[in-house]
Amino acid sequence: GLAKARDLKGEDYNVIALIGDGSLSGGEALEGFDMSATLGTNFIIIVNDNEMSIAPNQGGLYDNLRLLRETNGMAECNFFKSLGFQYHYLEEGNDIEKLIELFQKVKDTPNPTVLHIHTQKGLGVKAAMDNKEMFHWILPNTLDENNEIIERNHQKHETYCSLTNDYILEKAKNDPTIIAITPATPGVYEFTQDFRDKLGRQYTDVGIAEEHAVAYASGLAKNGAKPVLAVMSSFIQRAYDQLSQDLCLNNSPVTLLIHWGGISSADATHLCCFDIPLMCNIPNLVYLSPVNKEEYMRMLDYAVNQTERPIAIRVPAGDLISTGIEDTTDYSLLNKYKVEQVGSEVAILGLGNFYYLAKEVKEELKNFGIDATLINPRFITGIDENLMNALKQNHKIVITLEDGVLDGGFGEKIARFYGSSDMKVLNYGAKKEFPDRVPLDELYNRYRLKKELIAQDVLSIIEKAVV
Amino acid sequence: GLAKARDLKGEDYNVIALIGDGSLSGGEALEGFDMSATLGTNFIIIVNDNEMSIAPNQGGLYDNLRLLRETNGMAECNFFKSLGFQYHYLEEGNDIEKLIELFQKVKDTPNPTVLHIHTQKGLGVKAAMDNKEMFHWILPNTLDENNEIIERNHQKHETYCSLTNDYILEKAKNDPTIIAITPATPGVYEFTQDFRDKLGRQYTDVGIAEEHAVAYASGLAKNGAKPVLAVMSSFIQRAYDQLSQDLCLNNSPVTLLIHWGGISSADATHLCCFDIPLMCNIPNLVYLSPVNKEEYMRMLDYAVNQTERPIAIRVPAGDLISTGIEDTTDYSLLNKYKVEQVGSEVAILGLGNFYYLAKEVKEELKNFGIDATLINPRFITGIDENLMNALKQNHKIVITLEDGVLDGGFGEKIARFYGSSDMKVLNYGAKKEFPDRVPLDELYNRYRLKKELIAQDVLSIIEKAVV
Repeated sequence: GLAKARDLKGEDYNVIALIGDGSLSGGEALEGFDMSATLGTNFIIIVNDNEMSIAPNQGGLYDNLRLLRETNGMAECNFFKSLGFQYHYLEEGNDIEKLIELFQKVKDTPNPTVLHIHTQKGLGVKAAMDNKEMFHWILPNTLDENNEIIERNHQKHETYCSLTNDYILEKAKNDPTIIAITPATPGVYEFTQDFRDKLGRQYTDVGIAEEHAVAYASGLAKNGAKPVLAVMSSFIQRAYDQLSQDLCLNNSPVTLLIHWGGISSADATHLCCFDIPLMCNIPNLVYLSPVNKEEYMRMLDYAVNQTERPIAIRVPAGDLISTGIEDTTDYSLLNKYKVEQVGSEVAILGLGNFYYLAKEVKEELKNFGIDATLINPRFITGIDENLMNALKQNHKIVITLEDGVLDGGFGEKIARFYGSSDMKVLNYGAKKEFPDRVPLDELYNRYRLKKELIAQDVLSIIEKAVV
Repeated sequence: GLAKARDLKGEDYNVIALIGDGSLSGGEALEGFDMSATLGTNFIIIVNDNEMSIAPNQGGLYDNLRLLRETNGMAECNFFKSLGFQYHYLEEGNDIEKLIELFQKVKDTPNPTVLHIHTQKGLGVKAAMDNKEMFHWILPNTLDENNEIIERNHQKHETYCSLTNDYILEKAKNDPTIIAITPATPGVYEFTQDFRDKLGRQYTDVGIAEEHAVAYASGLAKNGAKPVLAVMSSFIQRAYDQLSQDLCLNNSPVTLLIHWGGISSADATHLCCFDIPLMCNIPNLVYLSPVNKEEYMRMLDYAVNQTERPIAIRVPAGDLISTGIEDTTDYSLLNKYKVEQVGSEVAILGLGNFYYLAKEVKEELKNFGIDATLINPRFITGIDENLMNALKQNHKIVITLEDGVLDGGFGEKIARFYGSSDMKVLNYGAKKEFPDRVPLDELYNRYRLKKELIAQDVLSIIEKAVV
């Protein structure tokens, strides 16, 4: 697009794109390569081939990159040339002099050109070279002053991820059809090397290819396997079309585990607050939102073993919370919310991560003589109409709390449901915006996601009603 | 996915996929090719190469297909081989005997294999062979008993498409930076061969590659061009991620024309009722919904010439409606709804195509002594808070009508807005489901999208209030 605009304006300069080898497997990248090869004017793509995706590369394309590396770029069968690009290979990609030499050579080239540059990931830092996957993303203070990894006392403790992985491994002992799938982000859900090795062919990393991940899982389920696809909230948006057309229209019984869903202080390209609006308006999908270990495990077991429909689970963010009491709910009875505490006047629907905020709001309201009803909706994709109608008897206000963008989400559906009734509805969640590394507490204040602020809102409505 | 499930189950049969050459350029297809090449077991992909996408093929990949055709599949530089596939070429793709021979040869192959089969589109029907693009999709009674096209009296009449095209051509006379873009569906919006020829390099068909279409448009806008991307409602869902990350996060001033948006009797893979929930919850996007020629032209002109933000326009479905009165609205004043007729008690918000249903409802309510306020919201992506607050003075019920799925859409936001007030809100639109070729009238009844049914609902609320 940038290069074409240059041409339309009659301007003359080099337009240069940079892409890592790992990103090549993504549909958007492949579409862009295919089309830009026909631009007919200057366009240079630097492919930084460091032989890694986030995790190791996956896909046939990477065998071709290896062939090209092994032949110093001379192999006739060349992915980039097959699309029509001029092609140059540079083996010494970490050598600045050699890079400059190549850049000078191709500068002002009148044709779409690929520079395939072989680099060493983490060159100069031994710990980074030895731990390539780990070093995709590390925290400060990972290395000491000698650039060595600071050993920490990693006591193995239970997490939603470890529980998931234990469940899958246990299940795989007797069921050759359960299969764990990730689009290039195994580290996010503790799909460790040991986990991958144990699962063997019952594990697939599809590479950075979320569209294929969903379509692949749908095909697996359609043919009788039990796919469990784990993906970050931020990246599932790459597969909206596949969720709708491949998965939900076919009603394929896939288990989708959506990780890290919630309002966060992440940068604007990694926000995790859009998965609810994205997914909950697609027909046939059941999107579950557990609030503790026991619910999560029960839902996971239900999702994996049923054969009726696609089921997504929003894996709780943060530390594991356990009640110690086994959940025996039958989740095949769809859209049945759980009333945790019966009260009156005000009902609080605390969805997923925000169930605990709902509890706090209930406590806060006690200070004002209000004994609120506390509800754990569990189902994001449907309304418990019987319960919602029953609330009309002795409740005046329903509050919804969701850890994501309000627009298109859960709370608006509750507001629509009560639209023709006398029930007042207050929806809490994030504003429709792209916050960029904004501290979480600032966002919670901005969105009034604090027990005191919510109580204020409730009281102002009740006072109005009294007047 | 189907093949992998077969392997996990220890079963043994051929899994065969079929794809047209046109679909190869789509990101999902490319991801699938890349990954499936590494399956390591039987998987056969038949590539039916008839040298056409919907319109002519676009992208560098198609030069490689031509090279392979010209060399009878022998060229060393081979896109499919570069991904790791076994490869067979068949020139006589319309010859059943030859096809069977090839199929028998590759049956039970233990490796992922591509059969590149060259066919002639429309073989046997001269009219189809001579009009390949037209024959992607034709209506019954296109051909007479001699298989010749029935000439009809095509009087050129104004449509939303013809107006758009005239506008773009006129603008292009003096502005080399306006550029019309389509992802392989130029026929949908009357981007005729004549239109394409006249625009020359100011026209791009990116092929079946909606993701790239949006990213490309965003790049064009970022570098000062004026891209107008036309796309069908049903297909924009392939680009959710690009709408969010490439377009809206960058706030690129692209004009998106969304065609055919609305409830329809289409098959379940071509539904056009999800574009509002899909798009209206993405930050920074302004999604406009004109109701007549004058509004549409004013919005189009505003969108193309502004440089502030991405603007989508839901091109009205159906015949052109003209008021004959020029629209002089300043659409840069966002989220200002138009009050068409001032009334009281009931306010009807008729969005886009359903503005005319709103008018009917208003007339119907007159029979019951209700003089409703009629509002044309124009903006799908925001609420006119001043107007909505003002309605509280002398209105008890707000009705929203939208031509699409209710879940995640426009009306729910109005319901949320009024959640804490005494205003009753009734939302009308489609249910969250995948109807498959259901007659439109049946759907309208199912969704109560009839003036009599809506009036009934209104009266039942008013009666309750009186009691």
